[in-house]
Amino acid sequence: MAGSIFGTIFQISTWGESHGKGVGVTVDGCPAGLPLSESDIQQWLDRRKPGQSKFTTQRKEADQAEILSGVFEGKTTGTPIAIMVRNTDQRSRDYSEIASYYRPGHADYTFDRKYGFRDYRGGGRSSGRETIGRVAGGAVAMQLLKAVGIDLFAYTKEIGGIQADPEKFSREVIMENAVYMPDMDEAKKAEEFLEQCMKEQDSAGGIIECVIRNVPAGLGDPVFEKLDAKLAAAVFSIGAVKGFEVGDGFAAARARGSENNDSFCINNIKKTNHAGGILGGISDGSDIVFRAAIKPTPSISAVQETVNRDGEEISISIKGRHDPVIVPRAVVVVEAMAALTMADALLMGMGSRVDMVKEVYSR
Amino acid sequence: MAGSIFGTIFQISTWGESHGKGVGVTVDGCPAGLPLSESDIQQWLDRRKPGQSKFTTQRKEADQAEILSGVFEGKTTGTPIAIMVRNTDQRSRDYSEIASYYRPGHADYTFDRKYGFRDYRGGGRSSGRETIGRVAGGAVAMQLLKAVGIDLFAYTKEIGGIQADPEKFSREVIMENAVYMPDMDEAKKAEEFLEQCMKEQDSAGGIIECVIRNVPAGLGDPVFEKLDAKLAAAVFSIGAVKGFEVGDGFAAARARGSENNDSFCINNIKKTNHAGGILGGISDGSDIVFRAAIKPTPSISAVQETVNRDGEEISISIKGRHDPVIVPRAVVVVEAMAALTMADALLMGMGSRVDMVKEVYSR
Amino acid sequence: MAGSIFGTIFQISTWGESHGKGVGVTVDGCPAGLPLSESDIQQWLDRRKPGQSKFTTQRKEADQAEILSGVFEGKTTGTPIAIMVRNTDQRSRDYSEIASYYRPGHADYTFDRKYGFRDYRGGGRSSGRETIGRVAGGAVAMQLLKAVGIDLFAYTKEIGGIQADPEKFSREVIMENAVYMPDMDEAKKAEEFLEQCMKEQDSAGGIIECVIRNVPAGLGDPVFEKLDAKLAAAVFSIGAVKGFEVGDGFAAARARGSENNDSFCINNIKKTNHAGGILGGISDGSDIVFRAAIKPTPSISAVQETVNRDGEEISISIKGRHDPVIVPRAVVVVEAMAALTMADALLMGMGSRVDMVKEVYSR
Amino acid sequence: MAGSIFGTIFQISTWGESHGKGVGVTVDGCPAGLPLSESDIQQWLDRRKPGQSKFTTQRKEADQAEILSGVFEGKTTGTPIAIMVRNTDQRSRDYSEIASYYRPGHADYTFDRKYGFRDYRGGGRSSGRETIGRVAGGAVAMQLLKAVGIDLFAYTKEIGGIQADPEKFSREVIMENAVYMPDMDEAKKAEEFLEQCMKEQDSAGGIIECVIRNVPAGLGDPVFEKLDAKLAAAVFSIGAVKGFEVGDGFAAARARGSENNDSFCINNIKKTNHAGGILGGISDGSDIVFRAAIKPTPSISAVQETVNRDGEEISISIKGRHDPVIVPRAVVVVEAMAALTMADALLMGMGSRVDMVKEVYSR
Repeated sequence: MAGSIFGTIFQISTWGESHGKGVGVTVDGCPAGLPLSESDIQQWLDRRKPGQSKFTTQRKEADQAEILSGVFEGKTTGTPIAIMVRNTDQRSRDYSEIASYYRPGHADYTFDRKYGFRDYRGGGRSSGRETIGRVAGGAVAMQLLKAVGIDLFAYTKEIGGIQADPEKFSREVIMENAVYMPDMDEAKKAEEFLEQCMKEQDSAGGIIECVIRNVPAGLGDPVFEKLDAKLAAAVFSIGAVKGFEVGDGFAAARARGSENNDSFCINNIKKTNHAGGILGGISDGSDIVFRAAIKPTPSISAVQETVNRDGEEISISIKGRHDPVIVPRAVVVVEAMAALTMADALLMGMGSRVDMVKEVYSR
Repeated sequence: MAGSIFGTIFQISTWGESHGKGVGVTVDGCPAGLPLSESDIQQWLDRRKPGQSKFTTQRKEADQAEILSGVFEGKTTGTPIAIMVRNTDQRSRDYSEIASYYRPGHADYTFDRKYGFRDYRGGGRSSGRETIGRVAGGAVAMQLLKAVGIDLFAYTKEIGGIQADPEKFSREVIMENAVYMPDMDEAKKAEEFLEQCMKEQDSAGGIIECVIRNVPAGLGDPVFEKLDAKLAAAVFSIGAVKGFEVGDGFAAARARGSENNDSFCINNIKKTNHAGGILGGISDGSDIVFRAAIKPTPSISAVQETVNRDGEEISISIKGRHDPVIVPRAVVVVEAMAALTMADALLMGMGSRVDMVKEVYSR
Repeated sequence: MAGSIFGTIFQISTWGESHGKGVGVTVDGCPAGLPLSESDIQQWLDRRKPGQSKFTTQRKEADQAEILSGVFEGKTTGTPIAIMVRNTDQRSRDYSEIASYYRPGHADYTFDRKYGFRDYRGGGRSSGRETIGRVAGGAVAMQLLKAVGIDLFAYTKEIGGIQADPEKFSREVIMENAVYMPDMDEAKKAEEFLEQCMKEQDSAGGIIECVIRNVPAGLGDPVFEKLDAKLAAAVFSIGAVKGFEVGDGFAAARARGSENNDSFCINNIKKTNHAGGILGGISDGSDIVFRAAIKPTPSISAVQETVNRDGEEISISIKGRHDPVIVPRAVVVVEAMAALTMADALLMGMGSRVDMVKEVYSR
Repeated sequence: MAGSIFGTIFQISTWGESHGKGVGVTVDGCPAGLPLSESDIQQWLDRRKPGQSKFTTQRKEADQAEILSGVFEGKTTGTPIAIMVRNTDQRSRDYSEIASYYRPGHADYTFDRKYGFRDYRGGGRSSGRETIGRVAGGAVAMQLLKAVGIDLFAYTKEIGGIQADPEKFSREVIMENAVYMPDMDEAKKAEEFLEQCMKEQDSAGGIIECVIRNVPAGLGDPVFEKLDAKLAAAVFSIGAVKGFEVGDGFAAARARGSENNDSFCINNIKKTNHAGGILGGISDGSDIVFRAAIKPTPSISAVQETVNRDGEEISISIKGRHDPVIVPRAVVVVEAMAALTMADALLMGMGSRVDMVKEVYSR
């Protein structure tokens, strides 16, 4: 409960700082018998790796995953799966400047207030590199979802106000543009917008949408452990997230009941999905759809006002390697957090009926 | 972890259905020595009680809180505080119709899928009466916040698209209009809009805003237990919430970094508060500000399409006592969930530095 | 985590003091569809009720269980089951004396140190009445165990050094003697011993043994969540327990490996059961057997030395209603804690293999 | 909750198998500002390292701890501390025999039943090497205890029935004999006894005693989270533990109340300590004293009967590197589990009184 452990049965524990020896995760509670290899993990890590487009930091990191435990003869054993990524690009540079002041929009000040001091090298634990543990853990969760037939994916819905057109949605093109949009035309516009931001030494934010298909009805618990509340917490725990909504979300607040209610039809299917696949906190069998609002990257080269540790007002310009937008790289992190939440919900929900308990233990 | 327990040190466990014997809460982990009486709790319950305006159900419930344990000589003892509210208006009516079909926008279908059957009387556990336990527990949390000087309050920001004007914000008027808006002019418009909804047998949604003042810097934990992630989960666990945002929220996704970053000035105060009081998941000492999107009440009298338990398509019109909007009554529920989250964060955060641990135990 | 909540999926939250309004429990996470009535609970409460033999306090309490929620049409609904017992025999007496000093062997002093003050009436939360919540919750757990075919029972193994003879073990006679021993001859001796204790204004302790039959192999988790570690915590949380052992327990520490190892034979059955049904923290399918050491009742009428709240040394003689031995009444409490532990282990263990997860969700 | 995570605020997450790439631990929730180096950890690991006496396995492992994160400028930062030990002596041998049958007294059979298969190399996750993570995590906890002045240590109380004489107790000699007894005369006898066991291809068990001094009064919570219940769970989670007792333990079950009660005298000090430092689950300020019963090493060279995976009865003789007694090496593991429990109790207990909460947040 000190922050870096997530989940109840399917649990991950992450560690590591930007400029320490590495970053990693331990997955505990993964069912035994799941096929798992380092390449199953690497494919997800590669999607968040820096240096894949002009819109990401030029830091050079291979981000190679090493499985240290919990897999035997190609399958998970049911015991903890430790995964480590060594940091390789820890430039020896002078951090005395960054150590001396509080960057606007960063956690420098709050870490100092909470802990008395901080590992200031590259943001320490509040660096985006922290998400490697999430993605590696999420990769294991994805294997479990796949095993039960659940399909989960995310993409960039919007950057700097430029929205992918739902009418032109194409899942295939998501990975074919630098901003991971499902609409090539808007993707191009977003890229142009980002280039403009870079020229102006500024940054942009955006919105990520996640869709989860083939979800069994009945996942999630009433009251405090609602599936949407769990997804909200999971996604809001990602560094730059400032908003979260399910189904019609904030638009539902402006709709009438007669518009927002989803009628059921034959086979208990809903005619519409304003609810986003969750009713009363429990999955209803239709697609789960949610969105996360990502703030613009706080690190910008433009001059900003702030204070130093002595409380004096100063002007700064943040040098170094930073992304003009983190939305594209955050897509896989959103997927990871959603996958971890769904994996845990699957394992937590197996005993909701006495007949299910009897059945499992009468084998 | 089956859903009705919330918190880690400051914990509540709630119970009860709409038409059962009552509803209640047990608060465990409240520090000893806090003044607490039934009237401290009743004042919060009275704010969510039905029958206070024309926009709420006409169900007659006194909602009288009885403290059963944990208080001695007017102060909390550190042991569990059980609080019960007996249901009094459980009309003996015929539930066979409502038992037979799935209401759109309600949890009828998902409860059946999860549990195999459901207590269909008045919505059972998924009724709004479930929130009584939250509010009673939240009242205890509020006493703790008050003791350390934290000021927490919420209000209706928007109903059916009609927004309170921030320029005309007046905390005093919140309790003086039926929709709990901090702006009397817009409140009047919202009331007119709701009357129109009622005439049309329809319902409306809205947005609630919550402000938390005098928060010590340093609350919340990095990575998964960020303070905003905890608030998101807490607020999203309320029945009709479909969206949550902190500070500028979704608007931040459309801003530039240079606009969205809050510069620090003398005394480590931020010149602006786009962040909403939380940086890197940890409180920064400025006001915490968040909003929740509430969907329109799903129970409407207008005719709707749905299916019955035999899977046949039918038309229904929901009779009985329901609110055209739940936003005003949800305001105190949002306050309760925020208070519970903050109380737990206070207790969880006491040992973040070795010197604090030494100090407490050297007394 | 403040003390009165137990379990991870099958969770109970208890409340109440000796001389408050009542005591109770909320069970959350019980699977839906389990038959449950107030009489299912009452039969267990009656076994711990005072006044059943000359060896128990003469306090008059009906200890009538009222189910307040979570049961519909005679079956659990999957939502919280609140159970309350009103205190009826709260004599109006003068507590100023007991409030003024620290009784040896009681929690008076430690409660004052932890919380600053205490509810001194009858021991408050540290009274034996606290166990009513455990027993009522345990009764629900017992229903679940029964549903999957597990048979769990306990009895007095020893009082004041007088041991039931394993050769003369008879399950039938346990409830037929005042000390709940499975051996009538030794039970008679124990009763005589207790009468002697009473004459001498003194008290006695003893040992309770619990047996759990028809346990599926595979329950419990490796490392920290071993099934025996969970049982140890559960049983050690009962007020007067000072020791706990599984299988041969402390005697195993004096045996050789060749004596202590249980050989497997055909059908994976062990020829002996020195291990007590658990290997590596996981149930092996043979009977789980454990014992708890119960200290003598600390409340005795004989004169004792202690200090008052002002730190002055004084002599006291504790008046009032207290048992010369609590072992017989603790038997059902041990059963309850074991049942709660096993119920949780059943629900936690359903997803240990991928094929089980697939099977449950492919239905 | 899948087994390898321990604690609530001060949490550890361990991983690793006997013959995998390594073993490790991540400590989350350690307060910031605690001095910590690799040598602080190494000194504890060295005490459990194999090859230190003739009574331990001849496996050659350096067991070198590497701190991967969470320490900056020689102090903990408040973020996760990952510690890894690479396995170096993973002999390439033939495991096909051990894979084929179930060793008596081991977890082979139960792992197969729970998970469907197992990593059979050297016991996999149920190997004693798993305790490296506990000891490394315990070393961090020890630093915290030291910071608040708590002194915690353990030793061998008994081996094969040979007991250290309390009259001759000398803390200094504990580390000066191969069995870690605080009494050189009995240590010598125990060593002779062990040599006899080895000759007979057999093994022995014993009892470990742990003492915790300078404990603040008020640690632990009532009801389920009693300090002794937490210690019981912590210690019982160690592989070979079969019994646990606090203070007089099982002997208390045979005492009278007048003998077992500890009278308080001036300064609230108890004249005796039959209770072992805990009353009502809360520390009373006197020494906490507990004992753990350790079973004889199940791996013995003598011929044993068992079954293979095909269910056929066979005779086996376990070859390879195993200790005739694990008690001496388990001493530091008991210390580690006790330290982890106490560290968590310290952090959990800081907010038991409102005035403490106010004080910490008014700074």
